[in-house]
Amino acid sequence: MSPAASAGPVPNAVLSYEQAGVRYELIDPLKVAAQRAAAATALHLGAHGLAEVAASRGESAYVVDVGPFHLASIVECLGSKVLVADAMKALTGRSHYAAIAQDTIAMAINDLVTVGATPLVVQAYWAAGGSEWFEDTERARALVDGWKAACDHCQVAWGGGETPALAGIVEPGRIDLAAACTGIVQPKERLSLGERLGPGDAIVLLASSGIHANGLSLARKLAERLPAGYLTEVAPGLGYGEALLAPTLLYSPVTEALWAAGVRVHYAANITGHGWRKLLRHPAALTYRVHTVPPVPPVLQFIAREAGHGVAEAYGTLNMGAGFALFVAAADAARAVEVAQRRGIAAWVAGQVEAGPKRLVVEPLALQFDADALALR
Amino acid sequence: MSPAASAGPVPNAVLSYEQAGVRYELIDPLKVAAQRAAAATALHLGAHGLAEVAASRGESAYVVDVGPFHLASIVECLGSKVLVADAMKALTGRSHYAAIAQDTIAMAINDLVTVGATPLVVQAYWAAGGSEWFEDTERARALVDGWKAACDHCQVAWGGGETPALAGIVEPGRIDLAAACTGIVQPKERLSLGERLGPGDAIVLLASSGIHANGLSLARKLAERLPAGYLTEVAPGLGYGEALLAPTLLYSPVTEALWAAGVRVHYAANITGHGWRKLLRHPAALTYRVHTVPPVPPVLQFIAREAGHGVAEAYGTLNMGAGFALFVAAADAARAVEVAQRRGIAAWVAGQVEAGPKRLVVEPLALQFDADALALR
Repeated sequence: MSPAASAGPVPNAVLSYEQAGVRYELIDPLKVAAQRAAAATALHLGAHGLAEVAASRGESAYVVDVGPFHLASIVECLGSKVLVADAMKALTGRSHYAAIAQDTIAMAINDLVTVGATPLVVQAYWAAGGSEWFEDTERARALVDGWKAACDHCQVAWGGGETPALAGIVEPGRIDLAAACTGIVQPKERLSLGERLGPGDAIVLLASSGIHANGLSLARKLAERLPAGYLTEVAPGLGYGEALLAPTLLYSPVTEALWAAGVRVHYAANITGHGWRKLLRHPAALTYRVHTVPPVPPVLQFIAREAGHGVAEAYGTLNMGAGFALFVAAADAARAVEVAQRRGIAAWVAGQVEAGPKRLVVEPLALQFDADALALR
Repeated sequence: MSPAASAGPVPNAVLSYEQAGVRYELIDPLKVAAQRAAAATALHLGAHGLAEVAASRGESAYVVDVGPFHLASIVECLGSKVLVADAMKALTGRSHYAAIAQDTIAMAINDLVTVGATPLVVQAYWAAGGSEWFEDTERARALVDGWKAACDHCQVAWGGGETPALAGIVEPGRIDLAAACTGIVQPKERLSLGERLGPGDAIVLLASSGIHANGLSLARKLAERLPAGYLTEVAPGLGYGEALLAPTLLYSPVTEALWAAGVRVHYAANITGHGWRKLLRHPAALTYRVHTVPPVPPVLQFIAREAGHGVAEAYGTLNMGAGFALFVAAADAARAVEVAQRRGIAAWVAGQVEAGPKRLVVEPLALQFDADALALR
């Protein structure tokens, strides 16, 4: 699994995430300016007799105290995974848009539940490159069916949405997919912004199904340099493109079941961009020590090997088999694993939180990420 | 103002909305399938002890009864108005992205308030064609500043958002802008889904600032056939591009002030795509008789004339000076106008609701739209 063990057919140059075309240094100044401007608008809630939950700034969803409970909201983009679906459609004739729909909803819902919210309403944002996108009725139908199935799985209401045709903005034949989600934190004690996070807590990791929807720029770039491209086998009978398109797991049934089972989540992190560095998401100075590493899905083993990534780059970029992290009291850890497994998602008591400098130590991989490995706020 | 009065320099062929590139017949089957699938998900709210407000299906925002109040949510796309801003930047060097930010927020907030909601949180969706979009820091800064200013004006909290770089999906150098908005209807009696709408109600129209953000495909197509394009004068000293980029008015300060002033809104319609046909939005069989027509902004007069539109096509496509319609008790109509004007928005008691077949009669224009002129559900 580590690139040192790579025995690929051709010696590959290392392919970094930056080489894959995402230049965070250009986006980050805007993000910082936007975050500051956004933070300054919180006072407006006072005019309505309400207030933000300030600890949610910089977290995965924004939370407002509306009195009897908290309100959480978010908008999330799918990103470039659609391009893999489009490429595979051209190669195999199969539509993967039902899976793509699930991915899009997962981007929003898996973030929303990190704050302790029950997702209630999803809004669809499907911006096509032109009216022609909708001519492929099988693909359009798959998008609708997959969207509904994901809503059913998460017990959320699909409220509506937008289906604009944006010729000149969205590329011809492409679609820009996003989801907005609104939920409530009820009772308020369900809020999991980390107030209760502390030394002694257990780290429970929930399995991913594969790459989910982060790291796709890298994965697509890699396909370009494979002789068989997306049809390359990553495991016997499993093609690269097919494996990439495994839909993102939806974690809200697990977080709902945990609450119902009396397990209080102290903090949660959706492991998306920045891979395992997301375990450092909470601002507190704490050491996260991992003793058990989930099995790595074949597609992620393949990417790490073919991209020439060391463990630090692989685990710092991709989810490497862990799609979601829960931080719970040590006494609740085994039960949390059981609850997840009863909802069909493999889970592991993977480590513990310790007093100490802010860092993540992954013992089985001799890997460490320090506080400065993740700068989200 | 009517095309019969046109004295343009060249005889123009009529330019319809369909010719401008938006082919609703391709999108509508998907919309219908999506609406059916979405409606079937409402039952999930029961699992959380909640229920949708069914009358909000097909309205401009989705409403859920969360107990002490209602929750309303929406996602809205700006559409192609950014392309006008980009073209004007190339022609004049001026960034119009502060106005564009207001347009985007207006698309969401003006829809959300139609159901009686107080908007609380806005989420930004800014999907660029590549990281390079953010290199123009003046433009990026204008987007941030304009977004914040619109949030300030509407007293909403900017919760956060997404700023993905979507090379291969969004066109290079372009940006796909959308906004998600969440609000509450409190007290519940503020809900304005039309239960109280009936004969005798007054129709109050609020002024628009120009084209707002609907009809831009047509407006852009028209620019292509003007010899001076966006620099064509539509009024002395006012260029076409400049006039198109007047930002959409934000109506939430008016709807908030109406409630504070004791004016109950029976129903409201945001006049966007389909122009004045949106006055027929409510499903009830009622006749809407307009006796007073607001002045038409020069840019809309110009478009109607140059596109060769008759009044039916102009008023059935563009807002023609009326950006938002309020339906209130006749006794409240004059006060509604005062309240709007105190918030800086011109308003008119424009007509009344009558018993009769579903239709809109605009007497000063000898114009009538029947029930089948608007099929939104």
